[in-house]
Amino acid sequence: MLESDMKPIAFSCGINRRVLLSTLALLATFSGPFLPVSARAQRPDGLLPSWNEGPAKQAILEFVRATTDRSRPSYVSSEDCIAVFDQDGTLWVEHPMYTQVVYCLERVPAVVAKRPELKNVEPFKTVLSGNREAMAKLSMRDLEKILAATLTGMSVEEFNGEAKKWLETAKHPRWNRPYTELIYQPMLEVLRYLRENAYKTYIVTGGGQDFVRVYAEKVYGILPEQVVGTAGGTKYGYDKDGKPFLTKEPKLLLNDNNAGKPEGIHLMIGRRPYAAFGNSTGDRQMLEWTGAGAGARLKMLLLHDDATREYAYGPAQGLPDSKVGTFTPALYEEAKKKGWTVISMKNDWKRIFAF
Amino acid sequence: MLESDMKPIAFSCGINRRVLLSTLALLATFSGPFLPVSARAQRPDGLLPSWNEGPAKQAILEFVRATTDRSRPSYVSSEDCIAVFDQDGTLWVEHPMYTQVVYCLERVPAVVAKRPELKNVEPFKTVLSGNREAMAKLSMRDLEKILAATLTGMSVEEFNGEAKKWLETAKHPRWNRPYTELIYQPMLEVLRYLRENAYKTYIVTGGGQDFVRVYAEKVYGILPEQVVGTAGGTKYGYDKDGKPFLTKEPKLLLNDNNAGKPEGIHLMIGRRPYAAFGNSTGDRQMLEWTGAGAGARLKMLLLHDDATREYAYGPAQGLPDSKVGTFTPALYEEAKKKGWTVISMKNDWKRIFAF
Repeated sequence: MLESDMKPIAFSCGINRRVLLSTLALLATFSGPFLPVSARAQRPDGLLPSWNEGPAKQAILEFVRATTDRSRPSYVSSEDCIAVFDQDGTLWVEHPMYTQVVYCLERVPAVVAKRPELKNVEPFKTVLSGNREAMAKLSMRDLEKILAATLTGMSVEEFNGEAKKWLETAKHPRWNRPYTELIYQPMLEVLRYLRENAYKTYIVTGGGQDFVRVYAEKVYGILPEQVVGTAGGTKYGYDKDGKPFLTKEPKLLLNDNNAGKPEGIHLMIGRRPYAAFGNSTGDRQMLEWTGAGAGARLKMLLLHDDATREYAYGPAQGLPDSKVGTFTPALYEEAKKKGWTVISMKNDWKRIFAF
Repeated sequence: MLESDMKPIAFSCGINRRVLLSTLALLATFSGPFLPVSARAQRPDGLLPSWNEGPAKQAILEFVRATTDRSRPSYVSSEDCIAVFDQDGTLWVEHPMYTQVVYCLERVPAVVAKRPELKNVEPFKTVLSGNREAMAKLSMRDLEKILAATLTGMSVEEFNGEAKKWLETAKHPRWNRPYTELIYQPMLEVLRYLRENAYKTYIVTGGGQDFVRVYAEKVYGILPEQVVGTAGGTKYGYDKDGKPFLTKEPKLLLNDNNAGKPEGIHLMIGRRPYAAFGNSTGDRQMLEWTGAGAGARLKMLLLHDDATREYAYGPAQGLPDSKVGTFTPALYEEAKKKGWTVISMKNDWKRIFAF
C-alpha cells in the first residue's frame, strides 16, 4: 500500500540538466552518438590495466557484470550501488606508520608553541625530544592525548588549512615523495571502474574523517560526503563579529574501526554496501556486513606480500603482525572460509604506484 | 604545491557509463539530440508551477542562475552544489504533532505487549490510557523515555519494517490521508528544480534519521545517505547462526536541531551548503551557517500563515508560538536583518498539496 500511496518521484540523481549538457558536449566531439560508450568499454589498455590476469581481477570484473547487467537476477539498481574502501593499507601505504599519526607527531611543536604549559608534560615531552625509541614505546593512551591536542581545539577551517599545508611538504621516508603519491594505482583503477559503472565509492577509514576529506577529492576523486571516518564532535559558536564557526571538539562520535565500520556505514550511508575492500582485522566486520547481504557481493582483502615493491607483513609470510595493518591468521582463515577474495600485491598487481 | 603534486582525477560523479547509456536512450525518443534540454527548460507550465510570481520564487530562480551560469563570478562547480532542507514544517505538515512523535506514541501498546513490566510505569501508563489531556502534559523527559522505548532495542531491519508498515496505514487527523501525502507540492518542485541544476538535495532534520530514511527516497527522491537527522548509535552483533546485525541503541550521537544542524552538516556532508530552507528556530543556525559562506547563498524560511489551506502560527499573525514549529519574533527579526527570504504559504504558494 505504501508503494501505491506514496508518490514516486523520478530520480534525477543520474540525469540532471548539467550532466545532460556536458554529455551532449562530449558527444559532439565524437563522430556518432553511440561511439563513446563502446570506446569506453574497449579502451586500448583494457580494463584495470595495472592488474595481472588472475582470480582477483576476475572477481572484480565478474562482480560488476553481475550487478550491472539488467538481464541477470543479481542486477542492482544504480541508487543502491555502494562500494566501500578502507584507506590505510588498502588505498595507500600505511607503513611504517599511519600518515595521520605522523601528521599529529609533527604538529606537536606547533601546539606546544601555542600552549607552552605542555612542554614538560608527557607525552609531549617525549615527542619533542625526538627520541624515536622512546616515541615507539608511547602507549595508546599517550597517543590519544597527542591526537586530541593536535586535531581539536581549532576551527574546522584552521584544521583543513594546516593539514593541507603539511601534506604539501611532508614526505614518506622510504620513497621521499609526498604521502599523497603513495596511492595504489591498481586501486585507483578499481575506484574509477566502479564509478564508471554507477557505483558510489566511499572511503570507510579508521583514520580521521576530517583529515582524509582534506585530500580525498583530489587524490581519489571521492567527495567529502563520501568519506566516512573516525569522527569527533564539533561545536557551533560565533566570533566577535557574530560570524559563526565550528570548533573541533575532543569528543569522539564515531570510532570507525572494527565493529565501528558497519556502524559508521549505517550512520553515514544508511544502506549495506555491495562491495567492500580492506586489508586488516579493522575491516573484518565491514566485510562480514557486506557479505551478509543477498545477491552478488564483492569482499576483498589486500595482502601485503611484496617487500620489494612495498612491504610484506601478515600471515602469508609467516611474519609477525606489525603494529599497523594487522592481517592476522584468523582473518586469513575467515576469508578462506567465507570465500572472500585475497589480493596478493606481489602476484595480482603489475605495478604499485603511478610513478 | 599540493595542487600540482597531487594527481587530479577526472570526476566521473556526473558522467558514468550508465548515465551515458540512459541519456542516449532518452535522446532516442526525441527527434533531435538537443531537443530535451530546451524542452526541459521551457516546460509548458514554466518553472516552479505551484509558486505564485513574487520575491520568494524570484529568489530561488535568481539563485540558481547565479550559481549555475559559468559566465558569472558566483558560479559554483557542481561538486559543491549542496542544498539542505529541514523536514517538519518545511517539506511536510508538522501540526498538530510531529509525525514521528505520533508514530512513537502509537507504538507504545506493541512495546508494552513485549515488555509487560512497563504497563504500570509512567509515562507508558498515561499513553496507554489514551487520555489526550494527560498526554499533552507529558514532559520532555517523559517523551525521551517513549522515544527510547519505541525507537531502539531492535535491529535496523526490524525498525525499518515497522516504520514502513505504520506509514502505510496511519492517517493525518485533519485530511484523513497518509502522512506521506502531506508533502508541500511547491517544495517538491524546488527539490526537483535544484536537482535538475546539479544540486545535491539533503534533508537536515531534527527528526530521526532512520525514520525519515524509510520514506525519503519514495516521497522526496532523496536517498538514505542524503538524509541527515537526529541519530542514535547502533551496535554490531551476531545472531545464533553467526549472521551479523545492527541493533539500534538508546545512545544519542547527534541531536540534529539548532546548533546541531551545522554540526550534523559538517559530520555528514563536510561542506557548507549553498542553499538552506527551514521554518523554525531549530533551523536558525543552519541558515546562519549557510549564509556565512562567500558568494551567492539562498536562505529561506517558510512562514505558516495559511489557516485555511494548512495552519497559521508564528509572529506574522501575532499568534502565540505553538509547541512545534517555533517561528519566533526574534527569528523573524534576524531574517529581516540578514536578508533571508521569508516564504508566505498564503501568498507565495498556488497550491499546498498534490491532491
